[in-house]
Amino acid sequence: MRAVVMYAPGDVRVDQTERPTILEPTDAIIKLAATCICGSDLWPYRGADDVDHQPMGHEYVGVVDEVGPDVVNVKVGDFVVGSFFSSDNTCEICQAGYQTHCVHRGPGAVPGAQAEYARIPQADGTLVATPGQPDADLIPSLLAASDVLGTGWFAAVAAEVGPGKTVAVVGDGAVGLLGVLAAKQLGADRIIAMSRHADRQALARDFGATDIVEERGDEGVARIKELTDGLGAHSTIEAVGTQESMLQAIRATRAGGHVGYVGVSHDVSLPGQELFFSGVHLHGGPAPVRRFLPELIQLIWDREIDPGKVFDLTLPLEQAAEGYRAMDERRATKVLLTL
Amino acid sequence: MRAVVMYAPGDVRVDQTERPTILEPTDAIIKLAATCICGSDLWPYRGADDVDHQPMGHEYVGVVDEVGPDVVNVKVGDFVVGSFFSSDNTCEICQAGYQTHCVHRGPGAVPGAQAEYARIPQADGTLVATPGQPDADLIPSLLAASDVLGTGWFAAVAAEVGPGKTVAVVGDGAVGLLGVLAAKQLGADRIIAMSRHADRQALARDFGATDIVEERGDEGVARIKELTDGLGAHSTIEAVGTQESMLQAIRATRAGGHVGYVGVSHDVSLPGQELFFSGVHLHGGPAPVRRFLPELIQLIWDREIDPGKVFDLTLPLEQAAEGYRAMDERRATKVLLTL
Repeated sequence: MRAVVMYAPGDVRVDQTERPTILEPTDAIIKLAATCICGSDLWPYRGADDVDHQPMGHEYVGVVDEVGPDVVNVKVGDFVVGSFFSSDNTCEICQAGYQTHCVHRGPGAVPGAQAEYARIPQADGTLVATPGQPDADLIPSLLAASDVLGTGWFAAVAAEVGPGKTVAVVGDGAVGLLGVLAAKQLGADRIIAMSRHADRQALARDFGATDIVEERGDEGVARIKELTDGLGAHSTIEAVGTQESMLQAIRATRAGGHVGYVGVSHDVSLPGQELFFSGVHLHGGPAPVRRFLPELIQLIWDREIDPGKVFDLTLPLEQAAEGYRAMDERRATKVLLTL
Repeated sequence: MRAVVMYAPGDVRVDQTERPTILEPTDAIIKLAATCICGSDLWPYRGADDVDHQPMGHEYVGVVDEVGPDVVNVKVGDFVVGSFFSSDNTCEICQAGYQTHCVHRGPGAVPGAQAEYARIPQADGTLVATPGQPDADLIPSLLAASDVLGTGWFAAVAAEVGPGKTVAVVGDGAVGLLGVLAAKQLGADRIIAMSRHADRQALARDFGATDIVEERGDEGVARIKELTDGLGAHSTIEAVGTQESMLQAIRATRAGGHVGYVGVSHDVSLPGQELFFSGVHLHGGPAPVRRFLPELIQLIWDREIDPGKVFDLTLPLEQAAEGYRAMDERRATKVLLTL
């Protein structure tokens, strides 16, 4: 089969590899309907994370092709969406809604989903079947649910978004934009998207943003304060993962407010005293997408949300390298790869 | 009048000073019934915070002696308890329960309460009158409500303590011990106090601790994990404020659990990646004691709680220097000063 492999930073290739096989009785093999490139794939691409001949991809939708003998919740032929982290969905941590911290989780995200087939561990806990075979136009949105929508949604939930609240969103990548969509669905009064890219601003408005702030850093914080009677946002979604974005999120939030952070933390060190006197709530981490999948799949199935709009470039899998370049150069927000 | 002044680190004296006077129409002057030394007073005493001829003390109970012309909620003769931070209790931030971040708050804690009289800014928002003149034996508990009880209570609320939960408490000073008391009142199933001092362990058990962990750092975390099926506490109260104690609290808490931190942060720098992958909720800061005062006063008045037990040394105000020494040398948990 064909699979995307990152040989080294900046060096992405499509190799011929073996179709994965069932290794554990709880595994399933799925035939992907589509896959995509994640903003977090840019960390190794840019050399910020180590990488050496790594099979890429952790976002996936497709049809179950084979199941291990212990799998009972999904069957061959089901169309499924899964979280980018596998989980048993039965342990105490999963039951509390933190499936990315499942006591039986794998060592990291599901690997190798930018490929024709992928092996999904703990299929019963990880995969959720859709109500039937989806129309083709729903596939991008279902694919988004696998990570970026679920992650943006978790950020909004972690930021305690709700009616009557003003929400600031730091980061205009796919996760930040879908944080806007989630904030709208969760009933926020006002949604301030921080973005300086016209196309992303337009999509943010389409998803429900009421205000756009182009300034960053201290100036961005000052603008958020101006828009909120000097107090700051009730809820702030952080979807970048840098020191600047974390401080921007904390400083843009009023005392007693909530910061939901999902940008994978890189070289972040939070000053304790500033955090202490900020009085904010801080919650985040790798999103337990599995918690939200049934609800998100239903919203997509009912065509109430269209998160697939974040894909602004579609390429065949063979052109994965061009997809990575386009995202690296910010020519694309998120790239869908067809099979 | 007599007042405690810290001339320099380690140099505490009782001076003759002027009785404070009304400066703002919203001020009240109170005649203190008792005052006390706070764990946070040890930071400047030990040279960790700058100090130069500083009037000390921010915890107080007493009788209103004089009010400014705009004060309507308390009157001369009322016995009052106040938060260590003044607040108007009417702004949007106060109404949300974050009075320590009041938009009209002073530059810091109420100053100069280790004295015969103290000036309390924004008396209407800051002070709460007791149902009547208290019996003498209630005064230590009412005094504790002014800061350490309210702070321990806030930590427990910030840590989302409640029925069915296991709570870990990092720090066996007055605030940590009263965090134990708060956790008990808030219905925690199990309360693990981290302490290696026999007298403090005994008081923790008296306040409701079910388990004691003597180990610290990684060993302490390992013990908490052992006691919680390997998962960590649901709720952890952090009442120290050092790098070690913050990391101990975060690491002792399960993913999806809550850390309530109230130890004033000193030289703390939180590693972003560890925090991200911990999956905990983090909330804390200077406690909005005012939010809890009516409830805490009633619990004390009804003799349902006895937080005054944290005072294990009582000295006349004149011997304040000995009080500081006793706390510095850990011969006393908390020192009450009589007037």
